[in-house]
Amino acid sequence: VTTCRVGIVGATGYTGMVLTRLLLQHPHCQITHLYARQYAGARVGDITPQFFSLSEHRYHSFDPDGALDVDVLFLALPHGTAHAVMPKLLGKVKKIIDLSADFRLQNMAVYEDYYGLSHGSPHLVKDAIYGLPELHRDQIGQAALVANPGCYATAVTLGLAPLAQAGYIEGPVIVDAKSGVSGAGRALKEGSLYCEVNEDFAPYGTYRHRHVPEMEAQLGVDLLFSPHLVPMTRGMLASMYLSMPEGISESQVGECFTSFYKDEPFIHLVKSDQMHTKFVSGSNHVIISWKWCEGVKRLVVFSAIDNLLKGASGQAIQNMNLMMGYPETMGLDALPLFM
Amino acid sequence: VTTCRVGIVGATGYTGMVLTRLLLQHPHCQITHLYARQYAGARVGDITPQFFSLSEHRYHSFDPDGALDVDVLFLALPHGTAHAVMPKLLGKVKKIIDLSADFRLQNMAVYEDYYGLSHGSPHLVKDAIYGLPELHRDQIGQAALVANPGCYATAVTLGLAPLAQAGYIEGPVIVDAKSGVSGAGRALKEGSLYCEVNEDFAPYGTYRHRHVPEMEAQLGVDLLFSPHLVPMTRGMLASMYLSMPEGISESQVGECFTSFYKDEPFIHLVKSDQMHTKFVSGSNHVIISWKWCEGVKRLVVFSAIDNLLKGASGQAIQNMNLMMGYPETMGLDALPLFM
Amino acid sequence: VTTCRVGIVGATGYTGMVLTRLLLQHPHCQITHLYARQYAGARVGDITPQFFSLSEHRYHSFDPDGALDVDVLFLALPHGTAHAVMPKLLGKVKKIIDLSADFRLQNMAVYEDYYGLSHGSPHLVKDAIYGLPELHRDQIGQAALVANPGCYATAVTLGLAPLAQAGYIEGPVIVDAKSGVSGAGRALKEGSLYCEVNEDFAPYGTYRHRHVPEMEAQLGVDLLFSPHLVPMTRGMLASMYLSMPEGISESQVGECFTSFYKDEPFIHLVKSDQMHTKFVSGSNHVIISWKWCEGVKRLVVFSAIDNLLKGASGQAIQNMNLMMGYPETMGLDALPLFM
Amino acid sequence: VTTCRVGIVGATGYTGMVLTRLLLQHPHCQITHLYARQYAGARVGDITPQFFSLSEHRYHSFDPDGALDVDVLFLALPHGTAHAVMPKLLGKVKKIIDLSADFRLQNMAVYEDYYGLSHGSPHLVKDAIYGLPELHRDQIGQAALVANPGCYATAVTLGLAPLAQAGYIEGPVIVDAKSGVSGAGRALKEGSLYCEVNEDFAPYGTYRHRHVPEMEAQLGVDLLFSPHLVPMTRGMLASMYLSMPEGISESQVGECFTSFYKDEPFIHLVKSDQMHTKFVSGSNHVIISWKWCEGVKRLVVFSAIDNLLKGASGQAIQNMNLMMGYPETMGLDALPLFM
Repeated sequence: VTTCRVGIVGATGYTGMVLTRLLLQHPHCQITHLYARQYAGARVGDITPQFFSLSEHRYHSFDPDGALDVDVLFLALPHGTAHAVMPKLLGKVKKIIDLSADFRLQNMAVYEDYYGLSHGSPHLVKDAIYGLPELHRDQIGQAALVANPGCYATAVTLGLAPLAQAGYIEGPVIVDAKSGVSGAGRALKEGSLYCEVNEDFAPYGTYRHRHVPEMEAQLGVDLLFSPHLVPMTRGMLASMYLSMPEGISESQVGECFTSFYKDEPFIHLVKSDQMHTKFVSGSNHVIISWKWCEGVKRLVVFSAIDNLLKGASGQAIQNMNLMMGYPETMGLDALPLFM
Repeated sequence: VTTCRVGIVGATGYTGMVLTRLLLQHPHCQITHLYARQYAGARVGDITPQFFSLSEHRYHSFDPDGALDVDVLFLALPHGTAHAVMPKLLGKVKKIIDLSADFRLQNMAVYEDYYGLSHGSPHLVKDAIYGLPELHRDQIGQAALVANPGCYATAVTLGLAPLAQAGYIEGPVIVDAKSGVSGAGRALKEGSLYCEVNEDFAPYGTYRHRHVPEMEAQLGVDLLFSPHLVPMTRGMLASMYLSMPEGISESQVGECFTSFYKDEPFIHLVKSDQMHTKFVSGSNHVIISWKWCEGVKRLVVFSAIDNLLKGASGQAIQNMNLMMGYPETMGLDALPLFM
Repeated sequence: VTTCRVGIVGATGYTGMVLTRLLLQHPHCQITHLYARQYAGARVGDITPQFFSLSEHRYHSFDPDGALDVDVLFLALPHGTAHAVMPKLLGKVKKIIDLSADFRLQNMAVYEDYYGLSHGSPHLVKDAIYGLPELHRDQIGQAALVANPGCYATAVTLGLAPLAQAGYIEGPVIVDAKSGVSGAGRALKEGSLYCEVNEDFAPYGTYRHRHVPEMEAQLGVDLLFSPHLVPMTRGMLASMYLSMPEGISESQVGECFTSFYKDEPFIHLVKSDQMHTKFVSGSNHVIISWKWCEGVKRLVVFSAIDNLLKGASGQAIQNMNLMMGYPETMGLDALPLFM
Repeated sequence: VTTCRVGIVGATGYTGMVLTRLLLQHPHCQITHLYARQYAGARVGDITPQFFSLSEHRYHSFDPDGALDVDVLFLALPHGTAHAVMPKLLGKVKKIIDLSADFRLQNMAVYEDYYGLSHGSPHLVKDAIYGLPELHRDQIGQAALVANPGCYATAVTLGLAPLAQAGYIEGPVIVDAKSGVSGAGRALKEGSLYCEVNEDFAPYGTYRHRHVPEMEAQLGVDLLFSPHLVPMTRGMLASMYLSMPEGISESQVGECFTSFYKDEPFIHLVKSDQMHTKFVSGSNHVIISWKWCEGVKRLVVFSAIDNLLKGASGQAIQNMNLMMGYPETMGLDALPLFM
C-alpha cells in the first residue's frame, strides 16, 4: 500500500478541521495541501494551533484552474460551490470526495427546487456515487467522485433502510430529528451565536429541510422530516415513528436489522435505553435501536451518530478508504468519547 | 384583599426554590413556613443564599400531625409522599396545591399501575381538581385541593386540547417531547450529573412515561409519547404529529386555536419558526404553533413552556391565585428571559 | 410620580433586550421608542417575540437630528458611536444613560489610547457622571448624562472600593476575572459562535482590556487585569488578590466592607463558599466575599454580578431611578434565578 | 515488544473509563481485568456500551487478596483506598500506577493533615515515584509504583517548573486555576448535578485545596492556590501571577521555557491568545504561554491541559509506557478535539 497525497478545500471550517485531524492520524495519508480562502497565506499554527505537527505549514487559496498534485481531494465547501468547479477537477484528481450537497441528487429539478440553484455540471451527476458505504460499498470502491451524504440523511437512512428494503414500512414515516450546533457550520449567523443557542431548544425547517430528497431517494418512502437544534456541539439523534404492514412482529424487525447490519464495522444495534448521542460522540460509529408500541401499533426507531464524523468527515474518510483500497476502518478507530 | 400566609413543603428542591422565589415577589403572599427535611434547622441564608430577604429564617421539618398556621400549603414532594399525609392536612389548611402526581389521576388502577404504589387516600381523589387553568378554571377557583399537572402533561395538553375538543384528531398522536434537565429534580442520580448530561441528547421512557395517563385523561385521544432529555437546565418543547379527519383545512385549525385561547393571558400563538424554548424561559408563558404538511397529510403542532414555571411552580401560583380570588396573573408578570 | 416616556437606541442587542424587558416591568416607565437600525420597520413580534405586549409595535431607525419625544433615552450602542451624536441629543432629552464606554473616562488621551478613536465631544465628558450608584449616588441624581460603567469595572470596583478608600491596598492588585459570553454582545464574531465557546475556557486581552482605565480611575490603585471567557451566557466573577499594609487584620477588612455597604440594597456580603454567579443571575444584586491567606500574606476578594444586569442594563435602570427621583430599586426586584 | 496484560480497578469512574478507552487503542496492551464494585458481574455492554469490542466482557469486584494475572494494574480509586491495599499488591503485580493521592506525598504529616487520614503503608511511600514524566522520566522508567499526579498539580507544576528551577520566582505565586466538572469524578454530589453547575461559575476550596502540597513539594515555592469550577466537562487552565528577581527579561523567560521543554512530545509553547482549553481537549497535550506585564512588574503564565488526559488517565498511560519500555507517546496520538 502506498501513501496517498491528500488535499482539503475548505480546511478551516468544522468539517475541514475534522478531516485534517482524522487524516493526520491515518497511517497511509499525507496531507499535502490545505486550502482556506479566508486564511490564505497564514501559518497553520496561527489559525488552528491544535495541529501541532502542521504548525509551519500554510493555508492556501484554492485555484481550480491550477495544477493539483494530490491523489485524493476533499471538498468541504457549502453547497453551490462544488458543482461549478467539478468539471475542472475530475480529470486532474483521481479521487474526489465532495462533502457538499451538489452531487447527492440525481434529479436536477429537485436539486434546483431545494437549493434554489441551477446546477453547473448536471452531466457529471450520474457518475457521482452516493457515499453511504453500508448501501453502496461496491460502487464507492469504483468511483472517481463520491457525494458524501448529509448528516441527517446518514442517520435517517441507516435507521430505516433495512425496514424499507424489507417492505416493512407503510405510509409516511414521522422523522423527528435533533442535531448539535456544529451541523450549521462555522458561518457567522446570529442563530449560531453561543448566547442564542445555549439553554435553548428549537425546531427549524419543519417539513422543508434540504436533506429530505436524499433520504427519500435512498429509501423510497415518504417522510415528514422535522429537525430540531440541540444546545450541544456534536451529536445527532433521529427518532422515527412508522406503521408496518399487518403481521410483522417485533422479532421480525429485530431479524431484519440484525441480518442487514451483521458485518458492518460501524453499526451497533443497542437497547433503546442506550441511545445516548455521547455513546458515539467523536467516533464514526452508529447506534440503532427500536421499540414496538403495541397500543398504538407503531414502531419507534432511534438512530444516533456524531454529525461531524459518521455524518460528515468520518464517513468521508470511510469512503476514501474504499476508493483507495485501504481497509474500510483505517484511521477511524477512535472510540466514542463518552469520557 | 388580605395577605395570605403560605407554607412550602419540599422548599429546597428545584420546584420548591422556584415557588419561594415567585412567592417572595407576589404582592399578597407572605412565606411563613419553609419545610425541608434535609436542612431542618438550618438558616435559609446558609442553604439558599439567593433569597436575601429570608436569610435569617430557618428551614424546618414538616410534621403533618402538628399545627399548621397557613392559608395555603404547597406540597413540592416526589410522588408517593403526598397521598399518605393528605387526610391529615385537608381539614387544617384551607387551600392545598400538590405538585406531585398523587392526585392527578381519578383512576386508581392506572395510578397504581404507572406509579407502582397503592394509593393511601383514594377517597380524596375525586375532590381533587386537575390544576390546568385553561381547561378547569372555574373548578380550580372552588377547590380545596388542586393537583398541579405534570410538566409534559401541561405542554402536550395545551397543544392538543383545542383540536381534541373540536374533534380534529384522528388516530394516535405521535408526541416527541424534549425537556431540560431540571425536570428530573434535585435527587442524586448518576443520570443527572453534569458530565453525563452535558453534550448528550437521549430518549428515555419511550411509550411508558408516567405523565401519559394524565394527558390521555384530559384529551381523550391515544398518544405515542416519546420523551427526550436536552442538555439545558430549563425549557420544554413538545412536537406533535397527527392526522385529521378529511376536510379540515389549515385555516380551520388556526380558528380553532385562536378561539380556544383568545382570552388566555399566558398562551401565545406564534409562527413555527419562533418556537424557541428561550422565548418562554423563566416565565409562565406558553407558545404554540402548527403547520400542515400537505404531502403527507399530517398536522404538526409545537408547544413550548418553561418546565419549572408553567410546567410546575408558575402554574401552581396561577392555581393559588384562582383559589384565593387574586388576579390570575398576579406575581407571574416576569417576562421570558431570552436575555 | 409621573410616568416617564423612554426610548432605547440599540434595542435588539443583548443589553437593549434586557433594558426592554426591565422597562416593561417598571411601574413608572412606558417604552415609546425602540430603535434598531438592522430591523427598522419590522414588527417587534417578528423580531423579539418574547415581548408579547409590544408585538404590534415597530422598531425604527434612530435619527439623532430628528425630534425625540422621550424623557429618558438609553444608548445601548458599541463604543465609538455615542460620542458623535451626544451633542445633538443632550439638549433634546432631559436624561440620557449611555451604556457605551464613550463617556466613562475623563482623560481623553487614555480614551484615545485604549479605544483607538478620537473623541467627538470631549467638552461634554466633564459633565458626564460615572454611573456606579454605590460610589456616586448623589451626582447621578443630578446628572443629565450618565456613563453606565463597564461590566468588569462594576464587579472589580465594587469589590475593591471599600479597601481602596480605607487605604488597605498595597501594590498592584491581581484581578483574575471571568465573564459569561453575553458580555461580547450580539455582534457576529467567530469567537462568539456556540461551537467555539462551548466546552472551552480561555483568557483574552490579558493586561490590556479596555475596562482597566475605568477601574483604575475609580480606585486609584494599579491593577493587573486578566479576563477570561466562561462557557455560559450570563454571569461574572472577579477573583482579586492583594497585599495589605502590615497590621490590618481580617476583622478590620470585614468591618470595612460591612460599614461601606451597610445601606446598599443590592450589595450582599457572603461567605466565600457561596460565591456562585448563579446566586445573582438574572438580578441586579452583587455578592462579595473575602478570605485572608495567612501563609502567603495575601487577601483574596471575590465579587460576582450578572454582567447583563448589574453589569449593564440593570445598573442603567438603577441610574435612571436615581435620575428620575424614583425609588432606587424600582423595577429591579427580580430575585436571582438560581432556579 | 510483548503485549502486556492490564487491569483497571475503578473502571467505571470517569478516569477508569478514559483509561479503558485509551488502552483499547494502545497497540501493545490487552485489557484483561476490569474491576468495578458497583457493577460486579454486569456485562460491559450493559454498563458502558461505548466499548463495543468489550461488550461481552464483565466487570468484577476487586479482591486484593486474590490472584492477579496482570502485568500492569491501574488503581483509579478515590484517595484513602489505595494506601490500605498496596502492601498486598506490590509483590503480585510488577507495575502499579495509582491515580489516587495516596502515594504522591513523601511527608506523612502533610498527607494526614490534608486528607484527614492516617496512611496505611507509609513504608512504601519512599519507593513511589511521582509520575510527572517531564520532571522524573528516568525514575518512572525504573519504578514499580508510580503515583500519578493530581490534575491541578500537573497543570501548575508544568507551568512553573522551568521558572522555579531557574530561580526566576520570587515570593508567593498567585495561582488562579479553573477546571471542568469531570475533575470532581462520578460520585453523587449535589454540587455535581447538571442544574447546579450549568450556567454557574464558582471558586471553591480557596487556599486549602488538596493538590497544593504536591505542587509545593515539586516546585519549592509558596503558592496561593485558588481553584474555580467551569461549566464544561473537560479542560483545565491555570493562570499564574508572579514576581521575578530584578533583571530577568521576558526573553530570558522565553529561553528558559524553550530549553526546558525542547524535546518534550506533549508540551507546546504558544502565544497567550491561543490559550484555549479546547486546543488540548481530548489529548495528552499541554499548552503553555506567558506575558510580562511591565507596568506592574509581574509575569503571567498560562498552562492548559485536559484534566482527564494529561491531568489523569493520559498521563497514567504515558507513565505506563515509560515503565514498560514502550515509546512514550504510544497510544496517545489522539489530536486535540477542537472539532
